[in-house]
Amino acid sequence: MKIAIDAMGGDYAPTEIVKGTVETAIAAPELELVLVGDKERIEKELGMFSTKPANISIFPSSEVIGMGDHPATAVRQKKDASVVVANRLVKEGKADAVVSAGSTGAAMAASLLLLGRVKGIKRPAIGTMIPTQKAPMLLLDAGANADVKPENLVQFAQMGSIYMEKVWQRKNPRVGLVNIGEEETKGNELVIAAHQALKKVTINFCGNIEGRDIPAGEVDVAVCDGFVGNIILKLLEGLAKSFGVMLKDAFTTSWRTKLGAALVLPGLRLFKQKLDPSEYGGAPLLGLKGVSIISHGSSNAKAIKNAIRVAKETIEADVVGKITERIREEKQCEE
Amino acid sequence: MKIAIDAMGGDYAPTEIVKGTVETAIAAPELELVLVGDKERIEKELGMFSTKPANISIFPSSEVIGMGDHPATAVRQKKDASVVVANRLVKEGKADAVVSAGSTGAAMAASLLLLGRVKGIKRPAIGTMIPTQKAPMLLLDAGANADVKPENLVQFAQMGSIYMEKVWQRKNPRVGLVNIGEEETKGNELVIAAHQALKKVTINFCGNIEGRDIPAGEVDVAVCDGFVGNIILKLLEGLAKSFGVMLKDAFTTSWRTKLGAALVLPGLRLFKQKLDPSEYGGAPLLGLKGVSIISHGSSNAKAIKNAIRVAKETIEADVVGKITERIREEKQCEE
Repeated sequence: MKIAIDAMGGDYAPTEIVKGTVETAIAAPELELVLVGDKERIEKELGMFSTKPANISIFPSSEVIGMGDHPATAVRQKKDASVVVANRLVKEGKADAVVSAGSTGAAMAASLLLLGRVKGIKRPAIGTMIPTQKAPMLLLDAGANADVKPENLVQFAQMGSIYMEKVWQRKNPRVGLVNIGEEETKGNELVIAAHQALKKVTINFCGNIEGRDIPAGEVDVAVCDGFVGNIILKLLEGLAKSFGVMLKDAFTTSWRTKLGAALVLPGLRLFKQKLDPSEYGGAPLLGLKGVSIISHGSSNAKAIKNAIRVAKETIEADVVGKITERIREEKQCEE
Repeated sequence: MKIAIDAMGGDYAPTEIVKGTVETAIAAPELELVLVGDKERIEKELGMFSTKPANISIFPSSEVIGMGDHPATAVRQKKDASVVVANRLVKEGKADAVVSAGSTGAAMAASLLLLGRVKGIKRPAIGTMIPTQKAPMLLLDAGANADVKPENLVQFAQMGSIYMEKVWQRKNPRVGLVNIGEEETKGNELVIAAHQALKKVTINFCGNIEGRDIPAGEVDVAVCDGFVGNIILKLLEGLAKSFGVMLKDAFTTSWRTKLGAALVLPGLRLFKQKLDPSEYGGAPLLGLKGVSIISHGSSNAKAIKNAIRVAKETIEADVVGKITERIREEKQCEE
């Protein structure tokens, strides 16, 4: 199994990307990892380790797409950009998956252009795992599509359901539609129509879920458009940070709370770890004819390790094949 | 100053509603508080207190709108429902504001029907104060309008700006548009159009804010449609609860963390208090020809006290007059 990694994408590229790749290569010798990017810089980073694992190779590329570039335009113009080349390796069958921590827009545009959509899928979606009080939950779309139609939400639900069943071993995954009330007449025009459509497909649709049901972990898959999903995701990220600051303030009011804070530190670390997005690794771009995993822009080595693991599991579970099959079946039923 | 309070609305009505009203009446003898609802039950609740404050009166009403009722229909049919009667008192000039903790839909429908909209305001909005790392922020619309147009968002921004300036003494309040990116080309069709329109009105528009900027408290007013706003609000409420559960789990892993937890307890209480929605009191329904304050369905006496305080401050600041003026001026500028 071969995984192409965009070595130049992300706030801490290439250092953390290379570090995460080396650590994975050592822990999983059965994987072949291809670092795509500036050969010299990657070699320099690899030189920091005592030995370069034999299952790491470099595929050189001369360009980089930055956060300032317009994603779709940059992907078309910079044909030798690391993220474009990494996706091309998958397209040409030279790799089984691509992992990128660069601009989400560029990673999406490159995968969409080079890998293409599964037949019948109208809009691919970004699925992101978010921490809950119970088990982590898949939120999708987390930002690929700001404006969608009810039928797009239905496909998000189907793809998310397959992903959670195959990769996260959730049996008969519970799917919830993010809404502002439990009743099926509640919500905006989009979700009212989507609710009716979701009742007709073969998934375990549990109805609407409200904002408060998300942290409670009431479902396995939370479906929404990319506008709402991205706001939820970033709000959760922001809150994890703000709560940390607010807790620190609250714990340093007196000598008593300060002493207590020192004692609860291991517990707090556990709590922070549970909220840390890098623990949950990369977000699959679902609906493409290939495995593309997007990692957070601020990915450290741990996040990259997790993203590579997600790529491996998505390949092993044949998520692309399962989505293709499901959409084909639905289409046949309609005919 | 006379404030009508729907004594029958809310999960803990009439007990907590009456309790909050009595406590306010004692603390603020200059207010006249009118409890609207089942006379016998209110009298029984009032009987629990050693003396009934002289500034509390009862206005009897025979019906109640429950959570199961369809808001608009119920408001039309149950003409003697407590929430309808309380709003009618404001309409007829017999009260200066109404406070209700019952079904938000019913409170909104009653206020819309009886008080009516300020001339030129197309859609009233619910403004809710949410806790942030810095000072509390006004989020609107928090759920009144699931589908809106760009011009509605502009009016929400104007009304929110006036409210924060007049009631919360924020000078030149910073207004942010809730979006999924900083750039003005980001977002769905609605917010892209709203962004351009917001640049043209006389408010302190600071551009887009992302989900992560909300808990950071980057602006005074966060503008969004009622679908997004309600999801944000309920997500925050749910998280405050879930974080409590997760923290408790993290703090009871060993004797050391348990001891520490006991010591940080006062700090934790402070933290919880900061997140507690009842601390921030009622949510004004902005854009109506009268002051209507909606309190959370799970309101306790403290929440009711805060909601009455918000009503008082909204009357004193003449928010309704200021909104009316601003909209008239904008209209004249256009002509």
